[in-house]
Amino acid sequence: MAESAQTFASGSPRVLVAGATGFAGALAAHLIWRHPRMELAAVTGRSEIGSALQDLYPQYRVPLEIQELEEPLLDSLGDLQAAVVGYPHAAAAPTVGMLRGRGMRVVDLSADFRLADLAAYESWYGAHPRPDLLPQAVYGLTEMHRDRIAGAQIVANPGCYPTASVLALAPLARAGLIADLVIDAKQGVSGAGRTAPVETVHLSYAAENITPYKVAKHRHTPEIEQELALQGASLPVQFQAHLVPLDQGEMASCYVTTTRRVDDAELAELYAAAYDSEPFVEVVQRPPGVREVRGTNFCRVFAASDSHTGKVIAFGALDNLWKGTSSQAIQNLNVMFGLSETEGLL
Amino acid sequence: MAESAQTFASGSPRVLVAGATGFAGALAAHLIWRHPRMELAAVTGRSEIGSALQDLYPQYRVPLEIQELEEPLLDSLGDLQAAVVGYPHAAAAPTVGMLRGRGMRVVDLSADFRLADLAAYESWYGAHPRPDLLPQAVYGLTEMHRDRIAGAQIVANPGCYPTASVLALAPLARAGLIADLVIDAKQGVSGAGRTAPVETVHLSYAAENITPYKVAKHRHTPEIEQELALQGASLPVQFQAHLVPLDQGEMASCYVTTTRRVDDAELAELYAAAYDSEPFVEVVQRPPGVREVRGTNFCRVFAASDSHTGKVIAFGALDNLWKGTSSQAIQNLNVMFGLSETEGLL
Amino acid sequence: MAESAQTFASGSPRVLVAGATGFAGALAAHLIWRHPRMELAAVTGRSEIGSALQDLYPQYRVPLEIQELEEPLLDSLGDLQAAVVGYPHAAAAPTVGMLRGRGMRVVDLSADFRLADLAAYESWYGAHPRPDLLPQAVYGLTEMHRDRIAGAQIVANPGCYPTASVLALAPLARAGLIADLVIDAKQGVSGAGRTAPVETVHLSYAAENITPYKVAKHRHTPEIEQELALQGASLPVQFQAHLVPLDQGEMASCYVTTTRRVDDAELAELYAAAYDSEPFVEVVQRPPGVREVRGTNFCRVFAASDSHTGKVIAFGALDNLWKGTSSQAIQNLNVMFGLSETEGLL
Amino acid sequence: MAESAQTFASGSPRVLVAGATGFAGALAAHLIWRHPRMELAAVTGRSEIGSALQDLYPQYRVPLEIQELEEPLLDSLGDLQAAVVGYPHAAAAPTVGMLRGRGMRVVDLSADFRLADLAAYESWYGAHPRPDLLPQAVYGLTEMHRDRIAGAQIVANPGCYPTASVLALAPLARAGLIADLVIDAKQGVSGAGRTAPVETVHLSYAAENITPYKVAKHRHTPEIEQELALQGASLPVQFQAHLVPLDQGEMASCYVTTTRRVDDAELAELYAAAYDSEPFVEVVQRPPGVREVRGTNFCRVFAASDSHTGKVIAFGALDNLWKGTSSQAIQNLNVMFGLSETEGLL
Repeated sequence: MAESAQTFASGSPRVLVAGATGFAGALAAHLIWRHPRMELAAVTGRSEIGSALQDLYPQYRVPLEIQELEEPLLDSLGDLQAAVVGYPHAAAAPTVGMLRGRGMRVVDLSADFRLADLAAYESWYGAHPRPDLLPQAVYGLTEMHRDRIAGAQIVANPGCYPTASVLALAPLARAGLIADLVIDAKQGVSGAGRTAPVETVHLSYAAENITPYKVAKHRHTPEIEQELALQGASLPVQFQAHLVPLDQGEMASCYVTTTRRVDDAELAELYAAAYDSEPFVEVVQRPPGVREVRGTNFCRVFAASDSHTGKVIAFGALDNLWKGTSSQAIQNLNVMFGLSETEGLL
Repeated sequence: MAESAQTFASGSPRVLVAGATGFAGALAAHLIWRHPRMELAAVTGRSEIGSALQDLYPQYRVPLEIQELEEPLLDSLGDLQAAVVGYPHAAAAPTVGMLRGRGMRVVDLSADFRLADLAAYESWYGAHPRPDLLPQAVYGLTEMHRDRIAGAQIVANPGCYPTASVLALAPLARAGLIADLVIDAKQGVSGAGRTAPVETVHLSYAAENITPYKVAKHRHTPEIEQELALQGASLPVQFQAHLVPLDQGEMASCYVTTTRRVDDAELAELYAAAYDSEPFVEVVQRPPGVREVRGTNFCRVFAASDSHTGKVIAFGALDNLWKGTSSQAIQNLNVMFGLSETEGLL
Repeated sequence: MAESAQTFASGSPRVLVAGATGFAGALAAHLIWRHPRMELAAVTGRSEIGSALQDLYPQYRVPLEIQELEEPLLDSLGDLQAAVVGYPHAAAAPTVGMLRGRGMRVVDLSADFRLADLAAYESWYGAHPRPDLLPQAVYGLTEMHRDRIAGAQIVANPGCYPTASVLALAPLARAGLIADLVIDAKQGVSGAGRTAPVETVHLSYAAENITPYKVAKHRHTPEIEQELALQGASLPVQFQAHLVPLDQGEMASCYVTTTRRVDDAELAELYAAAYDSEPFVEVVQRPPGVREVRGTNFCRVFAASDSHTGKVIAFGALDNLWKGTSSQAIQNLNVMFGLSETEGLL
Repeated sequence: MAESAQTFASGSPRVLVAGATGFAGALAAHLIWRHPRMELAAVTGRSEIGSALQDLYPQYRVPLEIQELEEPLLDSLGDLQAAVVGYPHAAAAPTVGMLRGRGMRVVDLSADFRLADLAAYESWYGAHPRPDLLPQAVYGLTEMHRDRIAGAQIVANPGCYPTASVLALAPLARAGLIADLVIDAKQGVSGAGRTAPVETVHLSYAAENITPYKVAKHRHTPEIEQELALQGASLPVQFQAHLVPLDQGEMASCYVTTTRRVDDAELAELYAAAYDSEPFVEVVQRPPGVREVRGTNFCRVFAASDSHTGKVIAFGALDNLWKGTSSQAIQNLNVMFGLSETEGLL
């Protein structure tokens, strides 16, 4: 049944989280731990072996100990149906390969399997450790690739910026409306991760600050371009990220030069058509704040036309750790295992 | 000597601050109070009459009492050379007129005299209370209009967003490089003022949030367009503001579709030529953070070309209450009274 | 069955939230809305009639409209088993009386029914609007009065500071250990409510600030003294509150001069005996941070002896809007209606 | 003239800052750099050699390069009158000794010379590297030891908590009023330093948090006890520190069981007598917020009696990096060199 969603007659899928000491892996472990239809089999890390996860992340209340990811551990765990891998780019692929070798389906939080074009990957990230696995991978933006995710062996969980941006822009891309595009994104400090440089995440630097970073060279650019192309808009994208002083939250503000004039009524129709049946995309009628989606798997989108410039502005707001990363991984696991897509996420 | 800078053989210019209970007026009062070459003659307000300014703003340590702005008060104060007016739009113009009637030179912090085109003003703000005074007014972006400010009777102190945006873009405008333009701006909560709606400024709404506001209709748009046109770039500007969770600080991220390819070396030359002799514009070599200019009159600018898209990205970072408002007012007063432009501001 | 917990053979208890526009009422409405065993019958307010609650509090996703609390509305709603009242002190009692007159059981979030001693109430709050109802009221600190809450007609939901303080101190009070007591409490800005003065809650005042308030006169003092006396410690309490720059979270740091020397081993025994079977009190082994209980009904407590001074320090950490207010109201409703105490709260 | 304040007939004292890469040293360097009567001769560090200080701390605009502190550098710098040493405890003393060996007067920001009692030092910090230098050291709480500071060779700059606490309590200690004492202190994240553990300073841990730390064992305890004893109050002090989510700012809330009843009028007299002629201690009439002293050398104190408990509550508010550390070092340098005590600090 490799190409369709799996249903479990008895028992819940048992899931391993590898790389649970980082922000993304820890939240994924928390969400699986409290999930009514999944079992968290083990959590592993590359440091802090032997600590309870709840000592590192008291708010998550996961009592399991961090273990080292080794074959004997895996042997001892019995049947595992899936793993979430929360390793850095390039470190993830070999581990994904090892887990695939044991027959597990994998949701990989890194960028290693997001770009279908190997050359594109290598120009942004360097040599790919396991290009042989690329054909097994499906890009895990659930709303765009739900059917293929259902049967995927490897789900490349999207970057947070591509998630917010593509959800905000897909209805315009599908309508052939995007002639030129600027995306200005803002994110809280959790997006930099637990081990980011002191100047980035220390409250004494980050508070009362706004900082653009990776000017003209953010690695999420090719990912956004790949996905917009699949929706009908092939163009170089101007993408710029900024760090703002909050913990979790992300806003993608998208400025679209359109191929023809569009008004708000047409926008409303396009967005309703795209998202009316989506459980986690909320099309709203005023600019959303990221607090509205904090700690949830929702992405709020809002689009408006500007009669002065003729452009369309579209916003995507989400929690970078949730829909932007870890809860989308659980959404994907739900799809992969034939569970209700909202299970454990409302 | 109405049309040139005034020099005081004896004594310091005596300055009134009208509307000192708001964030902008209070800071202007503080800066004049501690200014080595100006005298703060009085502070007035439309509320909280009789309170000491330092009870409302303890951090500013200005012991003067808030008084009501009435003719008898003005009669009693003796010679006043200038006033800073910190009233809301439309409320400011009549007061500016009254003070002009007594011969005082005025720096007006409102938008009432910023737009030279009366029709533009009226389409954005409604009827103008004193259009007859418009010919006396000079737009107070010091770096752009220093010579005319020196002799001006009314200085229309710029909006914070136009200050950051125009300083970031002027070198490109002068070089004829701007074909299309998106400005995405982010600002701290102080920009909303002391009496903004609870949903905007209450920490329980503003913290851990990012919110776009006034989508496709921000009043700073015509101001930016006016000033860029004077620098050589006449075009409709896509301007979008966002509220982010800090107190003071503002970043304008400007995305320029250029009329021809530009590289970083040319950008460096253009910005150096524009700002090398400017005391308060710092051209930096990496993306600036707004903390770097917090509580100062500096504006940091940074520009880079993007070989992938061909666009140029320019950033302007300032403190919205300082260079974005009140310290720029003092900079203008320095120019108007022939003082060193940096006096009291370093 | 007035004096014992009620069980519903069919259907869930239907609950009204009166005063749903404030922070506490809105969260109570949200928790009931998503509660698997309760039905949110209606939300009412004294302002913003006709708005959807989710327009005021987008993060709560409660689509019900705010209505006016009038007899015809109540007539139209059919059987209502309970109400949560989120009105200010003194305004609450008459409404509680009206709802009681219709037979509803009430959880009152105000202070109106917290103090059993009418004279104490009147010395802190002024004349009591409905002293006749005091005998019906039970103080709603669940862990201390669970049995009486089960049958109560009016539950006086505790103040947030008394909740944190009494949970931190009850084991010491019961052991007769408290000879003298200082409580230094710190709280986020949400504790000031939605309509607090601008100088208290405006991010431009509250951020980067720490402010003591109500020095030597906080109204939670008699409430703490009443409850500690019930646990065995009758003494005047030095209580001091501080505002610190966060949204939700509260820490009570309690300094106890003991009646005899106590060591950490004895403290561990006392706290284990008190709380080992409590689902929502977590005795921890290191000083807790309030993030650990953010958005939950948990209270974390930690106690340590200081061999240098001989004193005992006890900390209570909770989310002032959750266990400190609204989720404790739901905990109490669970008890009142014979549901599992953790239902809808994990 | 070794034992009295030094006056410079010609030229300004030339000052070295050793350890300028940390928060405290960097701010000291900034304050000396802009000081009208001192010269910043050099900045040294134990890391980031060759970087400009303004690249590490852009907001300070000190263009000097970080150098290594070696004898050849000192030989090349010519006459140096003083140094500020910003090293960690135990690392500071040897460097202080080396600089003393070259005849420089030293303000040491570490704890190495704060405790006059060697045994006390060693029980809190371990072996003292240079006990021979202790007799040269004067405790640098300017308001308490001004006369001895004027002639000191080594000034042991106080800890931030002792500064706030002793200034808040000295009038009570001198009047023999302190029978028992609890100090509950709260501080921003900058107090943890630039290289503190990620769980302490990462915005994703520190924001929306309140955390007690070093329960019953904070090293500032003996320092506070030493200084209060010198003011007349010899007793063990219950001191407890908390981390709250801001950058700079500190509040010491002091709860005093008094030896006899005191009322507010007597408190007002005591505090006025103590501080009326102090330029940097502001006795205020309502609870101060730390924003009121942010970025200044002021300490605000407020005391009130509580008729309910009979206790006195005294608050001390300061900026932990300024009056709590680096600007107090400059205040001490001003005293040491016979300059006006407020020079460069207003």
